[in-house]
Amino acid sequence: MMNVPLNISSMMERAEKYFPKKEVVTRTPAGNKRHTYREIAQRTRRLSSALQKLGVEQGDRVGTFAWNSNRHLEAYFGIPGIGAVLHTINIRLAPEHISYIVNHAEDKVLLIDSDLLPLVERVKDSFKTVQAYVVMTDGELPETSLSPVYSYEELLAEGDPEFEFVKDIDENSPAGICYTSATTGNPKGVVYSHRGIFLHSMALGMADTGGLSESDRCMAVVPMFHANAWGMPFIATWLGSTQVMPGAQFTPKVLAELIESEKITVTAGVPTIWLGLLKELETGEYDTSSLRAVLCGGSAAPPSMIKAFEVKYGIPFLHAYGMTETSPLVSVSRLKSYETDLPEEEKLSIRAKQGLVVPGLEVKIVGKDGEVKMDGEEMGELLIRGPWIASEYYNDERSKDAFYDGWLHTGDVATMDEEGVIKLVDRTKDLIKSGGEWISSVDLENGIMAHEAVFEAAVIAIPHQEWQERPLACVVLHDQFKDKVSKDDIMDFLRPQFAKWWLPDDVVFLDEIPKTSVGKFLKRALRDQLKEHYQIQ
Amino acid sequence: MMNVPLNISSMMERAEKYFPKKEVVTRTPAGNKRHTYREIAQRTRRLSSALQKLGVEQGDRVGTFAWNSNRHLEAYFGIPGIGAVLHTINIRLAPEHISYIVNHAEDKVLLIDSDLLPLVERVKDSFKTVQAYVVMTDGELPETSLSPVYSYEELLAEGDPEFEFVKDIDENSPAGICYTSATTGNPKGVVYSHRGIFLHSMALGMADTGGLSESDRCMAVVPMFHANAWGMPFIATWLGSTQVMPGAQFTPKVLAELIESEKITVTAGVPTIWLGLLKELETGEYDTSSLRAVLCGGSAAPPSMIKAFEVKYGIPFLHAYGMTETSPLVSVSRLKSYETDLPEEEKLSIRAKQGLVVPGLEVKIVGKDGEVKMDGEEMGELLIRGPWIASEYYNDERSKDAFYDGWLHTGDVATMDEEGVIKLVDRTKDLIKSGGEWISSVDLENGIMAHEAVFEAAVIAIPHQEWQERPLACVVLHDQFKDKVSKDDIMDFLRPQFAKWWLPDDVVFLDEIPKTSVGKFLKRALRDQLKEHYQIQ
Repeated sequence: MMNVPLNISSMMERAEKYFPKKEVVTRTPAGNKRHTYREIAQRTRRLSSALQKLGVEQGDRVGTFAWNSNRHLEAYFGIPGIGAVLHTINIRLAPEHISYIVNHAEDKVLLIDSDLLPLVERVKDSFKTVQAYVVMTDGELPETSLSPVYSYEELLAEGDPEFEFVKDIDENSPAGICYTSATTGNPKGVVYSHRGIFLHSMALGMADTGGLSESDRCMAVVPMFHANAWGMPFIATWLGSTQVMPGAQFTPKVLAELIESEKITVTAGVPTIWLGLLKELETGEYDTSSLRAVLCGGSAAPPSMIKAFEVKYGIPFLHAYGMTETSPLVSVSRLKSYETDLPEEEKLSIRAKQGLVVPGLEVKIVGKDGEVKMDGEEMGELLIRGPWIASEYYNDERSKDAFYDGWLHTGDVATMDEEGVIKLVDRTKDLIKSGGEWISSVDLENGIMAHEAVFEAAVIAIPHQEWQERPLACVVLHDQFKDKVSKDDIMDFLRPQFAKWWLPDDVVFLDEIPKTSVGKFLKRALRDQLKEHYQIQ
Repeated sequence: MMNVPLNISSMMERAEKYFPKKEVVTRTPAGNKRHTYREIAQRTRRLSSALQKLGVEQGDRVGTFAWNSNRHLEAYFGIPGIGAVLHTINIRLAPEHISYIVNHAEDKVLLIDSDLLPLVERVKDSFKTVQAYVVMTDGELPETSLSPVYSYEELLAEGDPEFEFVKDIDENSPAGICYTSATTGNPKGVVYSHRGIFLHSMALGMADTGGLSESDRCMAVVPMFHANAWGMPFIATWLGSTQVMPGAQFTPKVLAELIESEKITVTAGVPTIWLGLLKELETGEYDTSSLRAVLCGGSAAPPSMIKAFEVKYGIPFLHAYGMTETSPLVSVSRLKSYETDLPEEEKLSIRAKQGLVVPGLEVKIVGKDGEVKMDGEEMGELLIRGPWIASEYYNDERSKDAFYDGWLHTGDVATMDEEGVIKLVDRTKDLIKSGGEWISSVDLENGIMAHEAVFEAAVIAIPHQEWQERPLACVVLHDQFKDKVSKDDIMDFLRPQFAKWWLPDDVVFLDEIPKTSVGKFLKRALRDQLKEHYQIQ
């Protein structure tokens, strides 16, 4: 076979040549901007040539501080298009972490959405390698203390719309880097190669995984600064799918409106987003009939939420699993062909799991005594390997803790049933170790969230003299149920669902659950917050 | 990213682990045999270990003389599973060509369906490298002059059902080899690597290409000795799809019955097969409602045939293009999302073309003055490149005629319209050069085949003193129209469709069109057959 390296620039070339009329839609304060792929491709070529003029060379890192937008999409291809490395910076990280990752990645140029300038200005003095700042704005360059500073649109105006992407590079060359949102310590960088992104994109386009298609109108709600928006911008461009970018500071209302007005067929995001959307849909004002899949990952979606989408609103829900280290797609939960006639509740419980590993990857679940039985009961740590799984953290000594023996050790505790379906039980660090046995905080949370009054719930381990650890339930009620539901109500609801020793020792009602920058429960913060209260036990 | 080589054994492992209950069905003289993937995988592992015991080593070639069957599927994985090379031998080749390819590939072991023994016995004395013959039969080993000879089932019985496939090999290692059915000279070998098959399979599983899925019930009618049955056995195994193998010597009736009884959703074959099936369906005896796609390639499907499937029988037709040298999938003809509201005739004409190049490959069409315009008019030779396109013929000096400048030069003449859709106009060698202009034999054939009385038609060039070449139409009529349709009827039918100088000089009625071993029109033979008749002009 020909020795043709897998290279992501070919995706944009395909969109340009075969889908020049299809569109990328970006929500902006001035309304929805529409660009065709012909325009996007030319702008991307202009960006590539402009970055070269700024001195960016093959292998250099270029950082982005940006929302989901057509410009961010141009950066997704324009930066790797010259063999440089797209560093998507999580704008929700703490300032000291932003400093850390810009310096650790040695970013040479930063592309910045104008509304995010204050964020960058605050930490700019700590940057050691940045040689140029490029501001992405429609109008005049705003006042800024950044220097030297350029206008993205002015650079593009001077760029070459026929620039030829650099394609003859080793497919294992880095195309992107993304840092995980660490809950402790500094963020850890994951490098994505051209090969990895190419293969991951094919997997996403396969009928049995994401099944993305030219006919889809995709809206990635998951930020483009988080694990490449789960790869959606790559595969959607490759297939010529319409892409809708929700832009800055969107609300559930904005998302619901975009779904209706842009006839979104596939959207992707974390459970927190979908909980918010569900609440908005309760107004009954939206037509969401265009949706063929709400892709959900990042953390486990409660079955009650899946049910609400499917039963109440007729919106097909697609539960998936992955992490920054895995590009991120690892598994998707779909029914097998011989399961489609099972009772609805049974189907729901299968689809609420994390699903089957996608073609191209291998998983195994390893407990104390080696690989666990495929019985849906035995728990162990989920291990993953494959061509789009990271082999290390970028220049980071912590690599050895997660990557060894040829496998990524995820830190996720899981079971696998006889059909091969993975079910996440907990994070290793969130499991509640009670009297030598394990209690899954995730199972308890799902049990609580099935209560109609509950908006969200987190269960954490609190220290206990006799049992070592015991579960504590932290519950946020829907507004209309505030002060109308008691601890006893919750406990009564849980009792038939769980063994007695699994039941939480207490239930506390909170206004909100603290979350990480990507919407996951921040249980460490919860534990800190509630420590005082429970340390006497 | 992890340096995990792309390896096809992982496909069978996935079927075994996650779809152990799904089935492979093989039609045999004794009825349909059913094996689960658990059984198939164990049999495959047994085969791998048995081949090792027979002395097959990494890189050795093992030939198969076999119909589509579960045993052939086991060979598809069992041979590459020890790092050896699957050589699928086209049983329809002339004996001297069979000798040539067995010797040229240096096959060490041959696996032979028992009904094909006479074929092999006839040429065995010419084999220079074969060290063992393995006969695939359910019963006793038949009398044979082959030696040493083994029973496939006895070897399996002694094999190891837990044999570990060899996976840690370079992904560019050969996994298969297939010789083209050359119309002149010796067949040419195309080597398929693990990487190439892996990527090609992913492409086939993408929603916008084949869209294969676990829920599919696939029947490859295209032989497994021809371009890996278009890759269907690989992707179907990987996804755990049900596979139905039509076995030896099937008729259109057999296919129609299998479609109904096995509820086939996807089937794949050449136009000749589908013409035969159409005739059978006219009996009105079959329920074909399970079909979601009839994949057609190998040579161009006449629009009239596509229409008959879609309009008359409501069977979705999927026109594709590829060749042995391209693994084979190159393009698939689907409507773009904004074309679905076009008038039916217009949609049909788009879908009768060869379609858009699939993600992962590049094509260009090069005429006398370089790349042709995307106008659907300018003709040129179709060039292809990508990671599942051959880079040479195996140990063959003729490689340089087809593979140069980094592209495969297909010898197919094509146009590309403004949507990027490829339309094959002809083989370079079948184009009719009349008075300095080009006439497409394929367009004329499609024009003729739209006539209700015509079963099939081939148009060839005949020498002409004044014009150099002129078209001659060779027509086979449906039985009920025999002797009821004249040359003038055909000419009158063509006149409104084509420019005057395109019209054939004559129409001859034949009982059949000679075909190659894979069902393509053998125009060289037609020209020879009709030479005498027309040489006086």
